[in-house]
Amino acid sequence: MCVQAIIPFKPVNPKTRLSCILTQPEREQFARVMLDDVISAVTGAGCKPYILSTHPFSCDDAETVVKDMGLNEALNACLSALHHPMLIIMADLPLVTVDAVSRLLHTAADVGIVPGRGGGTNSLYIKNPQLFHVDFYGASFRDHVNIARAAGMSIEVIDSFRLHTDVDEKEDLVEILLHGEGKSREFLMELGFALSIEKGRVGIQRNSHK
Amino acid sequence: MCVQAIIPFKPVNPKTRLSCILTQPEREQFARVMLDDVISAVTGAGCKPYILSTHPFSCDDAETVVKDMGLNEALNACLSALHHPMLIIMADLPLVTVDAVSRLLHTAADVGIVPGRGGGTNSLYIKNPQLFHVDFYGASFRDHVNIARAAGMSIEVIDSFRLHTDVDEKEDLVEILLHGEGKSREFLMELGFALSIEKGRVGIQRNSHK
Repeated sequence: MCVQAIIPFKPVNPKTRLSCILTQPEREQFARVMLDDVISAVTGAGCKPYILSTHPFSCDDAETVVKDMGLNEALNACLSALHHPMLIIMADLPLVTVDAVSRLLHTAADVGIVPGRGGGTNSLYIKNPQLFHVDFYGASFRDHVNIARAAGMSIEVIDSFRLHTDVDEKEDLVEILLHGEGKSREFLMELGFALSIEKGRVGIQRNSHK
Repeated sequence: MCVQAIIPFKPVNPKTRLSCILTQPEREQFARVMLDDVISAVTGAGCKPYILSTHPFSCDDAETVVKDMGLNEALNACLSALHHPMLIIMADLPLVTVDAVSRLLHTAADVGIVPGRGGGTNSLYIKNPQLFHVDFYGASFRDHVNIARAAGMSIEVIDSFRLHTDVDEKEDLVEILLHGEGKSREFLMELGFALSIEKGRVGIQRNSHK
């Protein structure tokens, strides 16, 4: 049976911490290609993607629902209505691969979780959604571990840097150029981004448009 | 047969980017407990650890060699002398687990590599050391991929945030408090470090000594 993969998405003015190097239209395109990479990986891993969007937008490869409530409220409404395993995965994980998603889906635990850098949660796989609820924002990784434990559910932390690496800041683009295998890397290269080495450290620079 | 695990180590004045929150003696102790976590994981995964140290120091759990040359030179001298598979793993990977090291050792490729954040290399497993040489510093991840390819060796990037997370800056300590399972986490907690939540983001604070 197909696992539903819910992907929260903000198509309008996303990734504002990248404003120093990307214009708003570029950030919107960039968010969209990162989403495409996530859709492609979850589909390849056998999931059916659903976009939970803050604004209307069109997507050929996934059903889209526009939410008129907070992220936690919207996700918890999905969780309480489902009787089948559910994947929640963030849209800003451009290093994602089919293998990484498959490892998460094959957890022996009741809940598989992938932490983001700095205490967040990048992905959750919940076998019995009715027993779980999400609490994103802040130290959500710890909160989700505690929620699972309080419900008597076993939890496994999936060890993947591909799912651990969310993109918020300029330095994160280095990881895409180094390890990306999808559209996000292609997009950045078309915009003229390239790696730069300064004083032995790897950074990023933007060359003039091709 | 036992795989040799070479662990480069700097016992004197290490991790200077942590000077803002740790004194030199604390940084030296901290480097040592991180090393202990790495020794413990590689030993658990069936390797025999060797410390390649910049200065003399005593260690009960591993043989120690003091190198009087550069890191690349010293490692390449080891590589060219070995006829058996060899693991190179950095000493500042306190999230390391036996499972993560085992995944690296079980690669089907000729070379398994774990990138560090920002283009470095955190670990390399080389089945035929005589065909390979290392080139650490700078964009070493790309360099190592190219060295393997030029030698006709297949290479696999191991997808592990536990081995991907090296510790250099204050923010990295958050990851240890959240995901550490060894002595490094214990050490930081004993020094009074704790997570702090400010404006929805997870940070770290140091309370007065217990």
